[in-house]
Amino acid sequence: MHFMENKCDTLYTADYVVTQNEGRDIIRGGAVAISGNSILCVGHADMLEILYPDARRVNMGASVIMPGLINAHTHVSMSLLRGYSDDKALMDWLTKDIFPQEAKLTPELVELGARFSMAEMIRTGTTACYDMYMLEDSVFRAADAMGMRAVLGESVTQFFPSLSAQDKAGYMARVRRYAEEWKNHPRIRMSVLPHAPYTTTPELLQECRALADETGAIFGMHLAETANETETCLQRFGKRPIAYCESLGLLQPDSTFFHVVHANEEELDMLAENRCAVVHNPASNMKLASGVAPIPAIATRNIGLGLGTDGPASNNAQNMLREMYLASLLHKVHNLSPTASPAQLALDMATRGGSDALHEPLIGTLEPGMRADFIALDLTTPNMQPVHNIVSNIVYAATGLENRLTVVDGKELYHDGEFLTCDYAALCAEMKQARSWVKA
Amino acid sequence: MHFMENKCDTLYTADYVVTQNEGRDIIRGGAVAISGNSILCVGHADMLEILYPDARRVNMGASVIMPGLINAHTHVSMSLLRGYSDDKALMDWLTKDIFPQEAKLTPELVELGARFSMAEMIRTGTTACYDMYMLEDSVFRAADAMGMRAVLGESVTQFFPSLSAQDKAGYMARVRRYAEEWKNHPRIRMSVLPHAPYTTTPELLQECRALADETGAIFGMHLAETANETETCLQRFGKRPIAYCESLGLLQPDSTFFHVVHANEEELDMLAENRCAVVHNPASNMKLASGVAPIPAIATRNIGLGLGTDGPASNNAQNMLREMYLASLLHKVHNLSPTASPAQLALDMATRGGSDALHEPLIGTLEPGMRADFIALDLTTPNMQPVHNIVSNIVYAATGLENRLTVVDGKELYHDGEFLTCDYAALCAEMKQARSWVKA
Repeated sequence: MHFMENKCDTLYTADYVVTQNEGRDIIRGGAVAISGNSILCVGHADMLEILYPDARRVNMGASVIMPGLINAHTHVSMSLLRGYSDDKALMDWLTKDIFPQEAKLTPELVELGARFSMAEMIRTGTTACYDMYMLEDSVFRAADAMGMRAVLGESVTQFFPSLSAQDKAGYMARVRRYAEEWKNHPRIRMSVLPHAPYTTTPELLQECRALADETGAIFGMHLAETANETETCLQRFGKRPIAYCESLGLLQPDSTFFHVVHANEEELDMLAENRCAVVHNPASNMKLASGVAPIPAIATRNIGLGLGTDGPASNNAQNMLREMYLASLLHKVHNLSPTASPAQLALDMATRGGSDALHEPLIGTLEPGMRADFIALDLTTPNMQPVHNIVSNIVYAATGLENRLTVVDGKELYHDGEFLTCDYAALCAEMKQARSWVKA
Repeated sequence: MHFMENKCDTLYTADYVVTQNEGRDIIRGGAVAISGNSILCVGHADMLEILYPDARRVNMGASVIMPGLINAHTHVSMSLLRGYSDDKALMDWLTKDIFPQEAKLTPELVELGARFSMAEMIRTGTTACYDMYMLEDSVFRAADAMGMRAVLGESVTQFFPSLSAQDKAGYMARVRRYAEEWKNHPRIRMSVLPHAPYTTTPELLQECRALADETGAIFGMHLAETANETETCLQRFGKRPIAYCESLGLLQPDSTFFHVVHANEEELDMLAENRCAVVHNPASNMKLASGVAPIPAIATRNIGLGLGTDGPASNNAQNMLREMYLASLLHKVHNLSPTASPAQLALDMATRGGSDALHEPLIGTLEPGMRADFIALDLTTPNMQPVHNIVSNIVYAATGLENRLTVVDGKELYHDGEFLTCDYAALCAEMKQARSWVKA
């Protein structure tokens, strides 16, 4: 048997283990045995202690060990602009406040923003993210240094020169360089990420698709986010956004589409037939008033369904516990049905669905052979007791700061107040300084 | 001048003080000077340090001091049932799961649930609450012991015998006893609280109103929470819920109505003309799929507008920072307008509006002469930097567990991990035990 063959390095035990396996098994008095970067065995603590008598033991006590959360759509570097502009109409927000600041970004600032958001994600139980932004090589460096698992890519629009490239050829060269520099990284994969239908041309989208095939990258894009996007697509291309992408051959099994708010039944069927994945971003959709994604309709189809925070300028946090809470509440009230989006669906979106959205089959559950990506939430804070239903407490009661332990690829990144892959105090001080830069 | 006459006991300083005064002044490098249970002065730290050289100094450093949050509608004892039943249709939830458990409650369990929720509120920055439940004398005792400010009252329906009384006369006697026992308490006031229009008779409602007048209590009730309530009221009384209450003389300046989801413009005008207060409960309205309250329309009228969590069985937390976040996001997406409910409105609801809803004019702002009820949020967690706009970070980025300090009536209840009015470890252990009781 698998768990007999390998040496167990560390045995993590806790009052509860939420496996998120096929049967959604929850183990009282559970344990996770890891070997290198992988999970060797998951089961009852007393049994695993007998199986692996020589392993290092870490007893998390009154905690719940669960799969690390997967933030399947974000722009981490935008922590620089957290709270810089809120409560404005989308186009005012973008064109008057966000774009002018972004035009001043440097590789150093993009990396600082990324490292700071990753500290927030590591602190609040996120082990993997799917990020798109400009000067993304800074984000690759941040993920490498911080120890997170990540799918990363350079966002591109038709408007050149951009911060990242003088022209389309320059963008292509940059993406090929990333592919070469980061190939075979144990935790980091590349994606090719055209920005959105309304900021690109059909030719650019097809060239991006070809570039993904050429470099072995996966493919992602903002899609069907706003009613305005639908109008623009209809006017410019004679098709609604999803049908437009389908006509260009962009609906592929390695494709992930972010937001997908304005989609009808026929379009959802297109996504399902082509085995695409979708990422829901409830906080961003609520805050920017984009609308409510048809999550119950997506969840009943064969569509990978992840969950993401979107960037810190429109959220304003990078906290997947809060995102699960919103994902579960929003569809209940929108559909006037308290059964529309149960807690388990939200937890599935943040774990198993994240695996689908990142096209990374070895994450999202705690099972033998999976990557050792997990977290442990404290159950002694006054919002986490009593435990009638551990999934309910995780989704409806946790804030994110209950997290005590973040392990990625078998390595501890955070443990009881200590960040183990960064000097957090120095990083925080650096971010405080950046404030004055952004305002300038 | 006021601040010269009294002795300052303690001077609390921090990087930011958010006053929530009329001008919404925010002070960089601010301080709050307190004397006994009151605020003596609020201003720049360097000036107040000169004015009060002999005061005890507490420097909160990289934190924001702000008014304590006011949870204006809850049922604190229901922490016993947190996560016991979720994701069900309202009537199934109530009749199959909640009511049968509530029928088994004892005064000891009600007090335990109340103390535990108060620990959560104290931990997450809430200094005052407005609570209604059964066996409420247990909640009075909990608030007294835990040091919170509270408006409390025994909920009543037409259905006797209840857990609290054999008949209506028994209920009246119980309320008169509370009035006598808790009169002149420095932090606790009583309210008379019929449950809702659909669980009472016109006679009972009018008798409750008279009882409030007789005992000097204020008056509150669930009102216009669900579409079903509107139908029932129309069928039974020929009027929609708010008009029905108006016809019974229940719209008074000391009245606070909880939820108010299903209200038209004419009904909101009735509430404004009679200077009533309303409490918004976004988490509960979302989770139970009750609908979306017309908050932008309420906010533009002369209606006191507080914010509440509702009970932990339908929230599932008692965390006003999360409630502010929801209050701000929900109305943006519901009205498809990112300007529909700015961060400042949410903060106003949780502070100044809470003062209106509790009919307690001495709380909700940090100003000389007000009660010394305030909190301090840590700004060094990775979700709280940079600070471009402190109100934005409080409403959109904070989780609740950033809170480092909770002061009520001049007394510290929580400070950097220490609960100062309870043995939290023992309380938490007791709540863990209660789990098995509730299941029985």
